[in-house]
Amino acid sequence: IIKTLIKTIMSPELRTYLAGQIARACAVFCVDEVVIFDELGEDAKSVEGEFKGIGKKGQACVQLARILQYLECPQYLRKSFFPKHQDLQFAGLLNPLDSPHHMRIDEEAEFREGVVLDRPSKPGKGSFVNCGMRKNVQIDKQLKSGLRVTVQLNKCQNKEGKVYKGVVVAPHVPRTEAGLYWGYSVRLASCLSAVLTECQYKDGYDLTVGTSERGNNADHITLPAFRHMLVVFGGLQGLEASVDADENLNITDPGVLFDLYLNTCPGQGSRTIRTEEAILISLSGLRQKISAVFPDQSKG
Amino acid sequence: IIKTLIKTIMSPELRTYLAGQIARACAVFCVDEVVIFDELGEDAKSVEGEFKGIGKKGQACVQLARILQYLECPQYLRKSFFPKHQDLQFAGLLNPLDSPHHMRIDEEAEFREGVVLDRPSKPGKGSFVNCGMRKNVQIDKQLKSGLRVTVQLNKCQNKEGKVYKGVVVAPHVPRTEAGLYWGYSVRLASCLSAVLTECQYKDGYDLTVGTSERGNNADHITLPAFRHMLVVFGGLQGLEASVDADENLNITDPGVLFDLYLNTCPGQGSRTIRTEEAILISLSGLRQKISAVFPDQSKG
Repeated sequence: IIKTLIKTIMSPELRTYLAGQIARACAVFCVDEVVIFDELGEDAKSVEGEFKGIGKKGQACVQLARILQYLECPQYLRKSFFPKHQDLQFAGLLNPLDSPHHMRIDEEAEFREGVVLDRPSKPGKGSFVNCGMRKNVQIDKQLKSGLRVTVQLNKCQNKEGKVYKGVVVAPHVPRTEAGLYWGYSVRLASCLSAVLTECQYKDGYDLTVGTSERGNNADHITLPAFRHMLVVFGGLQGLEASVDADENLNITDPGVLFDLYLNTCPGQGSRTIRTEEAILISLSGLRQKISAVFPDQSKG
Repeated sequence: IIKTLIKTIMSPELRTYLAGQIARACAVFCVDEVVIFDELGEDAKSVEGEFKGIGKKGQACVQLARILQYLECPQYLRKSFFPKHQDLQFAGLLNPLDSPHHMRIDEEAEFREGVVLDRPSKPGKGSFVNCGMRKNVQIDKQLKSGLRVTVQLNKCQNKEGKVYKGVVVAPHVPRTEAGLYWGYSVRLASCLSAVLTECQYKDGYDLTVGTSERGNNADHITLPAFRHMLVVFGGLQGLEASVDADENLNITDPGVLFDLYLNTCPGQGSRTIRTEEAILISLSGLRQKISAVFPDQSKG
């Protein structure tokens, strides 16, 4: 299974709609993990730009992360996991991700995301879970109420029963075993180097790609096989600014940080490409190259 | 010279920001012509959707066209060509195209866009043109004031003179002779078939591409050489809806209209891709294929 990972580096300009565009771009390209890092470091010029409606500096990344998590969460679970918050006050403007794990109420599905309910069950019987269906699901384990779980529903259900039956599985199972895109996780990093070092995968990222107008022409390269690919985008001032702001990095050329340093839009007709555009452009170009590496996974 | 043409079909939801995203996507990929067509036909459900701030139905396309033209116009000429209009009331939100023909005041450039001034010149001498520089430009011809012109500045200028000197050239010259991206033209079409038939190029479009989730996997095709390529995007309901709404078309499968009918994002992780996303995704994928056809033109 391909794990395409994105890290988005965001300048302080962080409107809700922009966050929604980033979330959708990640979903469209089946990104498994989004890493957000502070482009300028906490003490830098984070008051510049269109920094509206967010009180404190440094919160821009947190707000972006919160909106990304909100959009990733299936609609029927949002009440449980997202109490009212000022970062989400314009959530009504957001376009839905409409990804496969956002099930409609009557959709028949093998896997569903759910929340463990605060409803007592008999000893030896499992907890009840709200999976956004007309009936709750009784799972095989006793779990703490309020947990978000991934449920595999039993193939045969008693249609007359008061509940459905299912078992809890690891969140990656729909993706790794059934090939379904199952949303992304969100990670915050304090600086560019932390993006690369604080990896959630035991074996780390085995293919890292930096994107820049000053990178190598992506048309001329083919990708090697990989397990966990990380694609890194700069902010308005490019990855150079992130390298400068990062006290852990004693270099000036961001290219040395990555396995590949690519210009994914050679011949661009605008002097600048915005981060939300770069994500769609780069992932579209890389998706072609990825499917050449993993022809079996291509659904086309 | 590659002529990549886009037609965007827009559902009534037409906010200013969306128009700006489309304009930027076209500029980033050096699109020469944008064709906007009415997806649903004038009499259809054009009151549905987020149709805010536009009084009459059928005006959505006009507003989109106006914003696209506004953004394409260099900043210093906008006062001359865009009087205040309700369609442009939120123009302050728009991200600039920042394309090469949007010159800064002191930028030295061979070509510049300008407006002919209402300032008399002696018989036999040419008109004066505002090209957004500190001095006006005297051109080789007498032209009507208010015309938008493309000016080629003389290589040697008298730095002490009150004006610069230049000649008027056809608007395509910076693109075809100097390889500079020089913005797009905008055309309105009443329906899908008019997009294809009312072509401004004498020899028509010699490569037409329809985009659809139901198209063929774009990864498996290579493009033929072409002079004028047209890429067509559907609205929320896809090109199928446009075919249905078009009285001139007696077909149900949009695929038969185009030389190629492509899915440019196989394996998408969202059930839907929005038009503004599809433009970036598709043009990024096609750009790779285009530069394989025209390796000389690649700037990377």
